[in-house]
Amino acid sequence: MTGEFALIQQYFYPFSEKLGDDCAALEVPPGMRLVTSIDSLVENTHFPPEAPPRELGYRAVVTALSDLAAAGAQPLAFTLALTMPDGDAAWLEPFTGGLREALDTFNVELIGGDTTQGPLTITAAVFGAVPEQQMLQRRGARVGDQIHVSGPMGDAAAALCVMQGRWPGARKHRQYLLDRFYRPTPRLELGRKLLGLASAAIDISDGLLADAGRVGQASGVRLIIDENRVPLSPALRSVTDRDLVRTWALSGGDDYELLFTVAAADAHRVPGQCTCIGEVVAGEEQVTGGGYSHFPP
Amino acid sequence: MTGEFALIQQYFYPFSEKLGDDCAALEVPPGMRLVTSIDSLVENTHFPPEAPPRELGYRAVVTALSDLAAAGAQPLAFTLALTMPDGDAAWLEPFTGGLREALDTFNVELIGGDTTQGPLTITAAVFGAVPEQQMLQRRGARVGDQIHVSGPMGDAAAALCVMQGRWPGARKHRQYLLDRFYRPTPRLELGRKLLGLASAAIDISDGLLADAGRVGQASGVRLIIDENRVPLSPALRSVTDRDLVRTWALSGGDDYELLFTVAAADAHRVPGQCTCIGEVVAGEEQVTGGGYSHFPP
Repeated sequence: MTGEFALIQQYFYPFSEKLGDDCAALEVPPGMRLVTSIDSLVENTHFPPEAPPRELGYRAVVTALSDLAAAGAQPLAFTLALTMPDGDAAWLEPFTGGLREALDTFNVELIGGDTTQGPLTITAAVFGAVPEQQMLQRRGARVGDQIHVSGPMGDAAAALCVMQGRWPGARKHRQYLLDRFYRPTPRLELGRKLLGLASAAIDISDGLLADAGRVGQASGVRLIIDENRVPLSPALRSVTDRDLVRTWALSGGDDYELLFTVAAADAHRVPGQCTCIGEVVAGEEQVTGGGYSHFPP
Repeated sequence: MTGEFALIQQYFYPFSEKLGDDCAALEVPPGMRLVTSIDSLVENTHFPPEAPPRELGYRAVVTALSDLAAAGAQPLAFTLALTMPDGDAAWLEPFTGGLREALDTFNVELIGGDTTQGPLTITAAVFGAVPEQQMLQRRGARVGDQIHVSGPMGDAAAALCVMQGRWPGARKHRQYLLDRFYRPTPRLELGRKLLGLASAAIDISDGLLADAGRVGQASGVRLIIDENRVPLSPALRSVTDRDLVRTWALSGGDDYELLFTVAAADAHRVPGQCTCIGEVVAGEEQVTGGGYSHFPP
């Protein structure tokens, strides 16, 4: 792909003067611990080939930031490894536009990257800071804790039906669902409020049951979820096929809401946007594979 | 790829207890600045489909560490985003074996990762530390500086000929060349010695001329390389087709040696393994695209 270097430069170098070196330097605020996460979005696995490049650029940033939210971290910086079949401007222009929109929205700088030729794969490494010893983790849930989620479940799974032209609900909900898939809100503010409050946290990327199972497994307990308390959007409540809605809500991935556990005595301190959906009990988690699992460690 | 989660856990979780959370925490030594780099190795672009998985695991680590070497940084940690068609043990066992061998050799911990389904792509984000204000960069070369490289050029390009069964040299050199491709030595010790000595540095991944051009472009100068002084291995010196050797040495990528510039007055302090191959002059770098370019920023 010799000769397209100039095009890459044109679209990426304006993001930061830090780009274009072998390494990028990063300053961690005093008293804070650096945290990092790496995640890939792969064509045909995580998004359909017809996904708009602008939406992919936006989504690559916010899904990465969601991992920081789950750790209770404030964002510091972002690096991007972009593998693409060819470096054409018609794709790069909207992709970098979406990238910039998300980075500006959450005040995060792109400090490094790598572009290579191959099947479309977008890998983001994201950096954040948490106060020493306070990072939220999957381990830590205790018997008797309440289980909360930060927003409605199943919208992203329903969005895939919209994309495939088989959405069974009202037409008016389609854009809402597509936005929930392409533009999930990383719950950064909530994550920071959960420091010192939540006993364990995770962001729901692989499905409510699968990710709840991971918290249980890491914590050596079981998370019992009451299906009837799982919050649903008006869009999903408009669908008459309740089995379908149940599958989306319990096993659909990509919602990027936070799931966290909190001692019952602290429940009054949980921000109002959250919903209690169950309780932590003694026992060993059965890993059911009920989620939308693309074998993540 | 539901159901293969257990297999992934089996092969990756033994690397570190930090794996399996949304974020991994990282401690930066006092007085040091964190530096990071991200790089992808893509099947058919950076390695052939028949590449042995063990060698790919090793190479993913050392090529990432090479970026730290070019910055003069000491390694701290490593995260991996692995996209693969299927999660079979026959591939994961040797791949993680090579990964572990390299991580152990250079005393680096795997602290986080993501595995996804798709075409084979190995993306590494690596973390290191340099003393404040001392990171080596591409910018900084000055008119009159000498240009040095840390080892022989062109071996990795010749290794591709070995893989394709069209190596024109003596058979006895084949394993040496394959090792130079799959197991390049990240010049970490040299990089640290260059702190406060080199005016600019880069690791040669895209070809000597292309990467020298980047240093010139970033520094606002021109790097003039004397072809006759470019060091060659005994393997390459055994090849009679001098045009072919010249192409490998000047434009072949993947050698992962360091190129750096140093004031002539400091030349006596340059470690003995290095070779002076040219001089920095005034002028503007012509980006020729002569290297093995997969459009990296």
